[in-house]
Amino acid sequence: MRNLKLLIEYEGTAYHGWQIQPGVRTVQGVIEEKLSLLLQHPVRLKGASRTDKGVHALGQVANFFTSNPMDLSTIQRALNALLPPDIVIKEVEEVPTDFHARFSAKSKVYEYWILNRPFPSALWRRFCWHIPQPLELEAMRRCSEMLLGEHDFSSFRLSGDKSSHSWRRVLRARWRREEELLIFEIEANAFLRGMVRGVVGTLVEAGRGRISPEGFLEILEARDRRKAAATAPPQGLILKEIRY
Amino acid sequence: MRNLKLLIEYEGTAYHGWQIQPGVRTVQGVIEEKLSLLLQHPVRLKGASRTDKGVHALGQVANFFTSNPMDLSTIQRALNALLPPDIVIKEVEEVPTDFHARFSAKSKVYEYWILNRPFPSALWRRFCWHIPQPLELEAMRRCSEMLLGEHDFSSFRLSGDKSSHSWRRVLRARWRREEELLIFEIEANAFLRGMVRGVVGTLVEAGRGRISPEGFLEILEARDRRKAAATAPPQGLILKEIRY
Repeated sequence: MRNLKLLIEYEGTAYHGWQIQPGVRTVQGVIEEKLSLLLQHPVRLKGASRTDKGVHALGQVANFFTSNPMDLSTIQRALNALLPPDIVIKEVEEVPTDFHARFSAKSKVYEYWILNRPFPSALWRRFCWHIPQPLELEAMRRCSEMLLGEHDFSSFRLSGDKSSHSWRRVLRARWRREEELLIFEIEANAFLRGMVRGVVGTLVEAGRGRISPEGFLEILEARDRRKAAATAPPQGLILKEIRY
Repeated sequence: MRNLKLLIEYEGTAYHGWQIQPGVRTVQGVIEEKLSLLLQHPVRLKGASRTDKGVHALGQVANFFTSNPMDLSTIQRALNALLPPDIVIKEVEEVPTDFHARFSAKSKVYEYWILNRPFPSALWRRFCWHIPQPLELEAMRRCSEMLLGEHDFSSFRLSGDKSSHSWRRVLRARWRREEELLIFEIEANAFLRGMVRGVVGTLVEAGRGRISPEGFLEILEARDRRKAAATAPPQGLILKEIRY
């Protein structure tokens, strides 16, 4: 049996997230269907990150086992030909049998894109959260720094998260400005469900001047989802990279 | 009568180009319809550039006359609320009565985006031409330089162009690489119909090693559309700016 690793890009707009679920179209479901067809046996993918409905990925990773000897570049080309244009396989690689896309991951990197100008964007509307009111980037930066290190992130956990505990280690949490886009980059050993969007929703309140850095720290330390602001919408979130 | 100038962004995917035509959905047609509704009189727009079917714009300009005294920011907000999300008004400005979006323009700037990697992009597929074979950027640059200055661009003119002559002055023609994107930026006093896409289609042949710089010059000097390569597809083309 070969253990094959896929590097996957997808636009999440038309999907109910990554994870396979009965009765709805999911990224995992569509790839498993096409892979099973191609390799002539049922395929079950292990995905690194269960992205939510509407969230995008430039670097999702998944692995699966197959006894089919088809060569890797043929699998990639044939799979891309079978898949709809909003899912693209960027790489197919053979990995050791003990590799697991989720459990072998050392860290994950997400980006969140905010379009901060008075009017929305026609071209990039599927990939950003439009906020017309000017945000104070420095305030958002000061709060972001408090995320670094190990914390119990219960305040930024969506219902439905089944993790055994809510401690996560944030390695990087940075904002950069690219013209009218404010881009938040966050790397952590792992994330709770809805954590990036919960954090961004609350950082935006700081950017609007409604939460001070002290207030942000209180929210983080409260370990209570009801203290944080509303979750940021999914279309601004992009899974950038899984690090091994 | 006030002469109002609009700065417009649109995703061209769902439109048969800018110019109003009976029986099909065009950007001009949709904006005129909403403006007429808003200002309570028939509005006819003068657009700076007649972008083709599927071509995008970050900086299209159009002007129109109105006797309605509605203030500019109200027009912008109300129009954006009426328009579909793939058309956005970025600015509404009052200009002198002799301003004409097309005839007052000093130059126009287009970008063309090529995704040059073995597999396509799920996220950016609507905004680039995917070319899997590696292109030689230096060869494309050498040919692009020959476009500078005044030339008869008949070799890069699509049928249906109704210009009285085919001489145009190219002020800038540059390639830059942004990761896997090759971006061509071209500024000219004006463009023939299909000119940027004709030029890009032929430059790509140079990038594939099929046309030498000498061959490119011959094509330009032939003034014969049949000498040039196939026209590049519309989705990679973006109207960036109209300069006045």
